[in-house]
Amino acid sequence: MKPLTLNPDRLFPSDPDVRALCRRLYAEVKDLPIVSPHGHTDPSWFADNEAFADPASLLIIPDHYVYRMLYSQGVPLESLGIPRLDGEPVERDGRVIWRLFAQHWHLFRGTPTRMWYEHVLHDVFGVGEQLSPASADRIYDQIAHRLAQPEFRPRAMFERFNIELLATTESPLDRLEHHQKIRESGWTGNVITTFRPDPVVDPDWPGFEENVQRLGAIAGERTNTWAGYLQALRVRRADFAKMGATATDHGHPSATTCDLSPAECERLFSTVVSGKSTAQEREQFRGQILTEMARMSLDDGLVMQLHPGSCRNHNPGIHAAFGRDKGADIPTATEYVRALKPLLDRFGTDRRLTLILFTLDETTYSRELAPLAGHYPILKLGPPWWFFDAPEGMRFFRAPATETAGFYNTAGFNDDTRAFCSIPVRHDVARRMDCVFLARLVAEHRLDEDEARETAIDLAVRLARKAYKLPEPKRSAR
Amino acid sequence: MKPLTLNPDRLFPSDPDVRALCRRLYAEVKDLPIVSPHGHTDPSWFADNEAFADPASLLIIPDHYVYRMLYSQGVPLESLGIPRLDGEPVERDGRVIWRLFAQHWHLFRGTPTRMWYEHVLHDVFGVGEQLSPASADRIYDQIAHRLAQPEFRPRAMFERFNIELLATTESPLDRLEHHQKIRESGWTGNVITTFRPDPVVDPDWPGFEENVQRLGAIAGERTNTWAGYLQALRVRRADFAKMGATATDHGHPSATTCDLSPAECERLFSTVVSGKSTAQEREQFRGQILTEMARMSLDDGLVMQLHPGSCRNHNPGIHAAFGRDKGADIPTATEYVRALKPLLDRFGTDRRLTLILFTLDETTYSRELAPLAGHYPILKLGPPWWFFDAPEGMRFFRAPATETAGFYNTAGFNDDTRAFCSIPVRHDVARRMDCVFLARLVAEHRLDEDEARETAIDLAVRLARKAYKLPEPKRSAR
Amino acid sequence: MKPLTLNPDRLFPSDPDVRALCRRLYAEVKDLPIVSPHGHTDPSWFADNEAFADPASLLIIPDHYVYRMLYSQGVPLESLGIPRLDGEPVERDGRVIWRLFAQHWHLFRGTPTRMWYEHVLHDVFGVGEQLSPASADRIYDQIAHRLAQPEFRPRAMFERFNIELLATTESPLDRLEHHQKIRESGWTGNVITTFRPDPVVDPDWPGFEENVQRLGAIAGERTNTWAGYLQALRVRRADFAKMGATATDHGHPSATTCDLSPAECERLFSTVVSGKSTAQEREQFRGQILTEMARMSLDDGLVMQLHPGSCRNHNPGIHAAFGRDKGADIPTATEYVRALKPLLDRFGTDRRLTLILFTLDETTYSRELAPLAGHYPILKLGPPWWFFDAPEGMRFFRAPATETAGFYNTAGFNDDTRAFCSIPVRHDVARRMDCVFLARLVAEHRLDEDEARETAIDLAVRLARKAYKLPEPKRSAR
Repeated sequence: MKPLTLNPDRLFPSDPDVRALCRRLYAEVKDLPIVSPHGHTDPSWFADNEAFADPASLLIIPDHYVYRMLYSQGVPLESLGIPRLDGEPVERDGRVIWRLFAQHWHLFRGTPTRMWYEHVLHDVFGVGEQLSPASADRIYDQIAHRLAQPEFRPRAMFERFNIELLATTESPLDRLEHHQKIRESGWTGNVITTFRPDPVVDPDWPGFEENVQRLGAIAGERTNTWAGYLQALRVRRADFAKMGATATDHGHPSATTCDLSPAECERLFSTVVSGKSTAQEREQFRGQILTEMARMSLDDGLVMQLHPGSCRNHNPGIHAAFGRDKGADIPTATEYVRALKPLLDRFGTDRRLTLILFTLDETTYSRELAPLAGHYPILKLGPPWWFFDAPEGMRFFRAPATETAGFYNTAGFNDDTRAFCSIPVRHDVARRMDCVFLARLVAEHRLDEDEARETAIDLAVRLARKAYKLPEPKRSAR
Repeated sequence: MKPLTLNPDRLFPSDPDVRALCRRLYAEVKDLPIVSPHGHTDPSWFADNEAFADPASLLIIPDHYVYRMLYSQGVPLESLGIPRLDGEPVERDGRVIWRLFAQHWHLFRGTPTRMWYEHVLHDVFGVGEQLSPASADRIYDQIAHRLAQPEFRPRAMFERFNIELLATTESPLDRLEHHQKIRESGWTGNVITTFRPDPVVDPDWPGFEENVQRLGAIAGERTNTWAGYLQALRVRRADFAKMGATATDHGHPSATTCDLSPAECERLFSTVVSGKSTAQEREQFRGQILTEMARMSLDDGLVMQLHPGSCRNHNPGIHAAFGRDKGADIPTATEYVRALKPLLDRFGTDRRLTLILFTLDETTYSRELAPLAGHYPILKLGPPWWFFDAPEGMRFFRAPATETAGFYNTAGFNDDTRAFCSIPVRHDVARRMDCVFLARLVAEHRLDEDEARETAIDLAVRLARKAYKLPEPKRSAR
Repeated sequence: MKPLTLNPDRLFPSDPDVRALCRRLYAEVKDLPIVSPHGHTDPSWFADNEAFADPASLLIIPDHYVYRMLYSQGVPLESLGIPRLDGEPVERDGRVIWRLFAQHWHLFRGTPTRMWYEHVLHDVFGVGEQLSPASADRIYDQIAHRLAQPEFRPRAMFERFNIELLATTESPLDRLEHHQKIRESGWTGNVITTFRPDPVVDPDWPGFEENVQRLGAIAGERTNTWAGYLQALRVRRADFAKMGATATDHGHPSATTCDLSPAECERLFSTVVSGKSTAQEREQFRGQILTEMARMSLDDGLVMQLHPGSCRNHNPGIHAAFGRDKGADIPTATEYVRALKPLLDRFGTDRRLTLILFTLDETTYSRELAPLAGHYPILKLGPPWWFFDAPEGMRFFRAPATETAGFYNTAGFNDDTRAFCSIPVRHDVARRMDCVFLARLVAEHRLDEDEARETAIDLAVRLARKAYKLPEPKRSAR
């Protein structure tokens, strides 16, 4: 048995002076509450507060970082319990899935998954030995045992994780019953929604035309005209705001924005809802929607997030058998400077608006995003996203972002995760890596330590609160 | 009051062995004279040698790094004293502007501006306390007091900065009176001009057609034919060479070059001066001009500089209200391999020519620029430019540039600045970062210390002198 | 005289803890045999086992890293002994060439060539003084003396280098006589070929149409139809497999793949062999060939390698005078996500296939290649290639590749070199840099030392053996 421990200096460089600085800076932020303004946890967990079923269905089946790695080495998704769309059988025994995971544990060396899991096992579930084929069953039993206890129900974990606020993400077709139930429950956990309209604004979304109809039905508006469609979106944004939403989120293939005349918009809308549009028209429509969303934000104050540049469902076999979001999305080169210009020309200096930009193309940090965010009052840089939400990805981000845009045109950290148990470690990794960056600035006499301390706290919680216009904490921050 | 000091080890890593190496290497270069072959200071400062007006108009109003950051956080340019084109009132009180700057000082943490300003305050103006809202007035008074003294007139500062040579940049429409006056004054400071023809060769430049007419008038040539136009450029290049110019500079949206037949050139010229050209024709024209400039350089020996890839005046509101160069230029992806081929096919191996390449797209260092400069005899790599003229930008440049092109296909440092007082610190930062890079090579046993020492001096002064074909120093180098 | 020594800690960082870790990890891998599954050495060396002619013809004339650097500084290729296509005289005196090289030795500071040569001089030829104009003749004599000794014949060096396996690269027009001779000689050195079909599948290759005819003649198939052409390729793949080939290699301008219908293929084939194709048709043909090669690999098991993105023969003067592969190839931006989709849609999940991807565009590591290799079962990442086969290139690769694809979706190291004597040092540099990366993970408590040790061995030899399906070592690994 190989013991599992978490070294308190993990991620800190070994140089004694820098490490000492890291420790001092990290001491200021490690116990701050978690502010999680963007993510994909399931609100029903907090609405119903039922026990999680088993270790595999909590920790493996929803985690595309895990199963994409195993799949890349020849492990079929069926054997990991990923449900097939055709209902054909997949592995149902969580223990069997867990053993398969343990057999492939070495694949995760040097990946963030390795770090996330060690923290989840050790800190969340109190596991004291390293994962291996030999220990797999013992660890599985230990986690399963814990999950049956009241302290491991969703709300209890939410509280133990010291989460000040957690945003989920829902489509305009979601009636937000879970959020309603949370609010009516009297539980004090601050769970809010986020308005993610992709299914009703992206003509490439499966069922788009039908979704537009359903949007109208839910909003009580006629969505067969451009005006009615926009009004339905407005209605639903207001509904989302009532469930705490402070932000919208947009997952587009590119950062294209458009600023068409009302007549062009009306015509384009008719074309895309007819199902007979060209790829270019659909791209234009998405681009126009971003500008419309910006316009609505001037009124209702919702912060915009743009997550562009993923080539979704790259593997057609996986898409056909298992559906979306199965680890087969691949980044592509993404252009922002010309793409955002129509929206920026219209609203780039209107301080009622905040637009937080994300990227899957690291080359844009220094070339496009930091220069844009270092100029336009509405723009802020989101943290490294998805594949880059990892120590080296963070390191690669911070230097160019800071030299051109400074710390204060960034939006703090968000974990963007479905994996609830990993939320603490994801924030912890971000805090540690920010301390590493700040410690180096101090060690190289580029920043005073008192300023670094203040900046570390800003990066850990204050910038996220400010960028996302978050409500005051319900509970006093520890 | 928080004291302001400059640690002698700033920018050096904290590892004791590497730091010791940095110190030894830096000792070799810190007192070398400043060779500044490319920049944007105002020659009238040195011609007239009048006292600078006040701290804000010297240190803030001309510095787009400063006001773009404040603008990005919602500070109107008017409140920083940036003059409006329509003459509407803007803040005129330097002290009020300075206070506003001081209130936002924390925005610059981790940016090169922070480092530049601390050095300027401490070393140039002898300020002993850190900038803050509380100290703003005291520091303002201290700088204002100094500026009134003879030792802070332009020529005195030039000499105290130990500047061996300073190149300014003028358009062919400039009659170079200031340079003439400097030369006639008997002052020994070596200030030369640089030929930057953008206003008369870029058909997208405001007033291009009129500028071409004015060029003819100044040069005494008829610029209504391609031949006459080229002759006028030749005449003005000769005029610039008389005012010390050793180089031309070209700020194009892309690196496109063309090599058209004389007949095509004549036709293209007619089209662009008619004002009825397409975007593609204007791009082609700029591309042809680069090849013509190269051809002229074979005769007159002027070194070419190419600064491509900036999307100028991205923010139309700022452009309309305040004009060009107001911090709203954004880098774009830039291609060199195919773009430069027409010029290289024609002149790439003619050693009479030197072409120094710059970029705002860091991805091209390893992929395009270092491989090109590591092959073509005429090509040299310029230092990290603009947003990348910063410690991390320099670090990111040096590794890929060196592994493929070596040190000796680079052109040394140039500061490219309008901010006169920041010239010493910009060279100092570059020297320090080169010592950091070299010290690591030595510490990792990849280079001997004596070679690193020699290379540090090459990077600090000798490569710039050689690449720019600079005249021998007028004064003995300290 | 300045002594030449190789510090045992070269490339290791100076931090004492990390350096100690590096030493321990490196001790595990430094004496492992060399597995070289991709390279360009000449099989006649091992077939004939004759002495190498002289130091210049062994060490300079075939090394484009060397002569491109000298050429970039104005040294004509003729003076370095590079043969001209027109037979005009070039320098023949190896000693004169060697002196010229020594005069320019400082150009290589900070380049991998510097490191490779120092190792070759010191470890392969026992040279004890540094190269300089003063020592050039002495070192030349010493190497020349050694080359005349039996221990410096190719097979003896192969054995002394502890090469477990060495793959050369041949065209389908090569009858593999040298490989046949090696096999018949009874020598136990494991030298295998690789199937590189560019001259018969790339319509832009000089003599393509004639090459297709010659292919038919060699294979005994009629290559005037698409079917016959494919059959000829199949025949030759089988011939190559008999000479030990486990892999094919494809050097295309882009990563484009196509998946056309048989009728389209037949028509496209007719067009390209007619010599009347468009650039787009030739690109499409190359793309279809990759898919055909993948299909053949399902049957014969040959591993595919794709080396795209080089703009070949960029300098037309050099190409006309000296031919291909003369240091004038320049990388270009390379897209993989859409380019590979047709092939991946067809065969991306068929585990009989392995496709190893290389790049000259470092931006694709994090954005495209690691995400692709971290998902598709057939994909593996090759090591940093060409300009990036250098310490900083390796450092830049490992972080993004590992965080997204892990270590185990990479294919280990290959040296890809014509420079036989540099094979040991190239593998040594890769092993050292992998130890540096792993040591940092251990020092930052991200990986246990025992796992790092195992991973170091995997990266040094096991991953290459597995990815390339290499035969069991003939000799017991030392």
